[in-house]
Amino acid sequence: MSTSVGHPLPQLVTADGVRNQAIGRIPIMDVTPCIEGGRLAAKGTEYEAFPVRATVFREGHDLFAAEAVLVDPQGKIVQVETMVDIHPGLNRYEAWLTPTYPGSWSFYIQAWSDPWSTWKHNAEIKLKANTDIALVFLEAEELLRAALELAQPRSRESKDLLTALTEVSRSDLPALVRLAAATSPAVEAAMAARPLRDLLTTSPRYPLAVDRLRALAGSWYEIFPRSCGAYQREDGTWVSGTLRTATAELDRIATMGFDIVYLTPIHPIGTTSRKGRNNTLTALPGDPGSPYAIGSHEGGHDAIHPELGTFEDFDDFVARAKALGMEVALDIALQCSPDHPWLTEHPEWFTTRADGTIAYAENPPKKYQDIYPLNFDNDPECIYAEIVRILKLWVGHGVTIFRVDNPHTKPMAFWERLLAQFRTEHPEVIFLAEAFTKPPMLQGLGAAGFHQSYCYFAWRNTKFEVEEYLREVSTISDDRVRPAFWPTTHDILTPYMQHGGVPAFFIRAILAATGAPTWGIYSGYELAENVARPGFDEQIDNEKYEFKPRNWKNAEANGIAHMLGTLNAIRHRHPALERLRGLRINPTSDPHIVSFTRFARPEETSDGRGDAVIVAINLNPFEPITARIDLDLSPFGVNEQPEDAPIFEVYDELSGATYTWGAHPTVVLDPAWQCAHIFRVRKL
Amino acid sequence: MSTSVGHPLPQLVTADGVRNQAIGRIPIMDVTPCIEGGRLAAKGTEYEAFPVRATVFREGHDLFAAEAVLVDPQGKIVQVETMVDIHPGLNRYEAWLTPTYPGSWSFYIQAWSDPWSTWKHNAEIKLKANTDIALVFLEAEELLRAALELAQPRSRESKDLLTALTEVSRSDLPALVRLAAATSPAVEAAMAARPLRDLLTTSPRYPLAVDRLRALAGSWYEIFPRSCGAYQREDGTWVSGTLRTATAELDRIATMGFDIVYLTPIHPIGTTSRKGRNNTLTALPGDPGSPYAIGSHEGGHDAIHPELGTFEDFDDFVARAKALGMEVALDIALQCSPDHPWLTEHPEWFTTRADGTIAYAENPPKKYQDIYPLNFDNDPECIYAEIVRILKLWVGHGVTIFRVDNPHTKPMAFWERLLAQFRTEHPEVIFLAEAFTKPPMLQGLGAAGFHQSYCYFAWRNTKFEVEEYLREVSTISDDRVRPAFWPTTHDILTPYMQHGGVPAFFIRAILAATGAPTWGIYSGYELAENVARPGFDEQIDNEKYEFKPRNWKNAEANGIAHMLGTLNAIRHRHPALERLRGLRINPTSDPHIVSFTRFARPEETSDGRGDAVIVAINLNPFEPITARIDLDLSPFGVNEQPEDAPIFEVYDELSGATYTWGAHPTVVLDPAWQCAHIFRVRKL
Repeated sequence: MSTSVGHPLPQLVTADGVRNQAIGRIPIMDVTPCIEGGRLAAKGTEYEAFPVRATVFREGHDLFAAEAVLVDPQGKIVQVETMVDIHPGLNRYEAWLTPTYPGSWSFYIQAWSDPWSTWKHNAEIKLKANTDIALVFLEAEELLRAALELAQPRSRESKDLLTALTEVSRSDLPALVRLAAATSPAVEAAMAARPLRDLLTTSPRYPLAVDRLRALAGSWYEIFPRSCGAYQREDGTWVSGTLRTATAELDRIATMGFDIVYLTPIHPIGTTSRKGRNNTLTALPGDPGSPYAIGSHEGGHDAIHPELGTFEDFDDFVARAKALGMEVALDIALQCSPDHPWLTEHPEWFTTRADGTIAYAENPPKKYQDIYPLNFDNDPECIYAEIVRILKLWVGHGVTIFRVDNPHTKPMAFWERLLAQFRTEHPEVIFLAEAFTKPPMLQGLGAAGFHQSYCYFAWRNTKFEVEEYLREVSTISDDRVRPAFWPTTHDILTPYMQHGGVPAFFIRAILAATGAPTWGIYSGYELAENVARPGFDEQIDNEKYEFKPRNWKNAEANGIAHMLGTLNAIRHRHPALERLRGLRINPTSDPHIVSFTRFARPEETSDGRGDAVIVAINLNPFEPITARIDLDLSPFGVNEQPEDAPIFEVYDELSGATYTWGAHPTVVLDPAWQCAHIFRVRKL
Repeated sequence: MSTSVGHPLPQLVTADGVRNQAIGRIPIMDVTPCIEGGRLAAKGTEYEAFPVRATVFREGHDLFAAEAVLVDPQGKIVQVETMVDIHPGLNRYEAWLTPTYPGSWSFYIQAWSDPWSTWKHNAEIKLKANTDIALVFLEAEELLRAALELAQPRSRESKDLLTALTEVSRSDLPALVRLAAATSPAVEAAMAARPLRDLLTTSPRYPLAVDRLRALAGSWYEIFPRSCGAYQREDGTWVSGTLRTATAELDRIATMGFDIVYLTPIHPIGTTSRKGRNNTLTALPGDPGSPYAIGSHEGGHDAIHPELGTFEDFDDFVARAKALGMEVALDIALQCSPDHPWLTEHPEWFTTRADGTIAYAENPPKKYQDIYPLNFDNDPECIYAEIVRILKLWVGHGVTIFRVDNPHTKPMAFWERLLAQFRTEHPEVIFLAEAFTKPPMLQGLGAAGFHQSYCYFAWRNTKFEVEEYLREVSTISDDRVRPAFWPTTHDILTPYMQHGGVPAFFIRAILAATGAPTWGIYSGYELAENVARPGFDEQIDNEKYEFKPRNWKNAEANGIAHMLGTLNAIRHRHPALERLRGLRINPTSDPHIVSFTRFARPEETSDGRGDAVIVAINLNPFEPITARIDLDLSPFGVNEQPEDAPIFEVYDELSGATYTWGAHPTVVLDPAWQCAHIFRVRKL
């Protein structure tokens, strides 16, 4: 035990300012989604329903009801949904709400004593027991009169209630006739329209940061623009690709149906301590260096590498991408090469070591002398302002998405502030966190406001891992993290991809494209580039350190490029695949066959009809497998059926085949031929 | 979807008022204990340690540290404990804090960048790699100078740091000598006393309601005072026991070592609709009625049944109990017989039905015409004031504990208000909630402020159930519920007790007395009264409806009374048995043998030495069983040992036998002879 002195106590967390007590007349507790007691906003997406849950209960036997209320950024109530008890015995209530445009939304819960339901419940029992008949109908009269007061005078409702009141009060009529009058459809409709509510209780209001759909759903394609169109002269020296030659690749990418073209950094690259091929410490003449070693005498994060071209070229690239229906994502790596102008202009933005030198990146004993990290604590306001200026510069040139390199090496509070500012000033701009790190940081960055996050998908390969992870991202961390599923990146080539042959590239692409609303492909995937640098789970001859033009003609034979296009086309046809929270795992009889259903609720689709897709994938890249699937019928509103009863007509979006299915269909999946089904579903 | 109009929006939950952002420089997230985001206080007990946990992490590689800070009711920091990572990889940090007296305490967490640890970590690696030697010691100089600034001038610390600084700066010395100087015990002590802390971050402060030890730990004994000393005249009519005759029983109860005598209601009993024996609807002449049908022309909740005696008698009863070291708990049943004065004096405190009559209790089709429930919504302020007046009246007569009958039939917000007032004005008064109902309500009442709660113990009988429940009450619901373990009550006689014979009464008493810090015995347990009213899991000839004097001579033969006394004596010797949060389940080889270790930390015991008790119980009342126990050694700070190595000398508090134990002892437990061990433990 030590004693701490000299600083003031933090404040006690405060009550919500409306009520003097924490517990309302009808207790509403453990409301979710709720991050840090509501001090951080949960994530919402336009046209994505999210579940509101709370433990609601009351004293005694009287019935009660609860509803979830959605409040738009202007403070207007726009949706009110009745909550249903999803854990009878534990009184856990749920309703789904759907925000419809980006902004600072909020939600709360209200609960009330429900005298009409209580009366009906008691009346039915008492009439059956032939007890208290007169009293039962006197009570009905009181309630109907109360309902009349709420109804619009001279409205249809009002007339219906009055008619019921008249019959209910006639003690000469048989009890069952009076009951029928009191519970007629017209009365029920009136009561539903304006329920009688006693002891109305409201919860605090909880924040929900709603982003545009692309923050949740999209297909990414990553390129190193300098590789696109690069070529080797006869003397063996290289000529860099440019933004112009990269622009020429956009048609090919758009043909595959991608939504986002992501460019690794395009800024000038330092020459001091430049890395050579395969991450060697010394570059050879002509080695282009890592684009993550940002900055040279030619400029820093606000400049374009002269070999890539000019801002005009960049603007043309963006314009062409937009014309093809794609957004441009730019890599933001907040770090410097030794030659970055900031090192001389703003040495105070870095860490000065005890010997007066500026600190390069280290993880002792490893030294990264080509990289100088910013010190966010030395001059935080100026650094913050400069980074905002740079981001806005690129936004001014049409960038709508930033892929943030290593956000977990910068203070989380910095991101919270930055992301809040951009949500206010540029709500269209999306930030992807590249934080392949521990769960608290990965999830914390999501909670701090990152729109989406690279995640552990690449390392979840077995059936158990895949099922558990799909459940986690869709139902546990969905309040703070929107996962991006990438089978590979320029830094990641897992053993599964190294050893699974071309089928592994099919399997993981299908899993990524259907398992989460955002997926991404790193250029070269079409060629099944799967050779690793010995001892590392990343590609040999990594594009980070050299030019890597590719011959796309060679990609046609293996069919991967065609599959990527097919997957994106299927995704665009199915809102179910562009929503995160609608997922059910379907158990299967085989340890390699994964099946799941993705669905969108009616309110999540523009036609109001909802959508569902059933996926079945063979995770074994080497063997054909036959398996039985036990379909979870709940997303379809179908009850358990006799074993062979046909329930669905399913159409395989991959093969074009149609099947009639019951609840327990059999699939045959051969990685050499067709490793998966993606079924459109029609209920019979 | 319906539309709701006409009431103002609830407030957004607010930030804690200190920081503009929710995330501090070093993120501190998901702090527990935390109920409703900190709007309700978690439970603490004087001299009971409680765990503070938080997810703490930071950007980059630099090391950091966190500590939990305990703040007393005056706002003074009284304890600061370093947190340790209990889930490496998930960055879940924990420390235990111990409040020392009742009141409104609070706690918070602070975290900081730890430059000294970072330097040591890096220095060791760099010296091994023989790199940056000069820089390493320049950094050490900087840090030692910073430490010097924090140290008291001319103190021992200051001199030690200066000595180290001098040696560290001597580049003529070998690096290892300089390292040794920098990391000498004296320097480490100075650094530990006044750590260098960069980027100090504090969490919000969370409330902790601390109660006196009796709120957590005690042994209860329940009596119907009218049964104590009641007798039947020769003509068959009964003469009621009185508070005076009940006083005569106090010695017997005290001899068994109980801490609390609990009296079922002692108020006048209504005659209208009085219940007869075995809950029959009509009382026969001479039937005394249920003491829960409170109130007659002789008075209500502020009166004493004339047959029981006077306030003077009551005061004498309380005085005698206190003289014997026992507190008196009074039953508070906030309901009325039809003859309660409130019905005529305050009809507005009840529900008037549509026909103008006052509503009795109902759960249709069942009617409880002997009971009129209060309506807490009609005139809430006056009812509240009257109940406070009544409770204070009894407090004025020496009552320090209330056993609240059916709190779950009254509004939870009423309890929150009442309990907050009593915590302020009468912090010594303890309220026990009798809410045998759904988990949300049971736990909600605890969160609302009830000091302790009847719970599901009576229905947890199998090994799986017992182990799971012990874990739940000690580690999951411990922030809001202090459980009271009662093997039976006047309302509860489970099938296990009905059919397990006398051994069942031993087994469940031992489990109750050692499984939780509060346990309770209902009078008659000594006689193994186990005959149920047919079709009900409660006693036949229930004492609620008749006089039930008992012949305690008959109790001597079965040994139960002696066992109760032994158990209370053992509890009084062992603080480990009077704390909730120190529990480890020891796996055993048999499905009927349960074993667990209860322990108190050094700071929880008055001698500062801590305490531990190992319990082993045979849950099968019919068969002797031999089983192997796999002791969880963690409470003893002992690492796993070779199979047969002796670790402990254990002394069985029940039999007086002593054994030498390794990590996997064998026990033989025969319900006919000795169904359990309760071991005092001495490490060898």
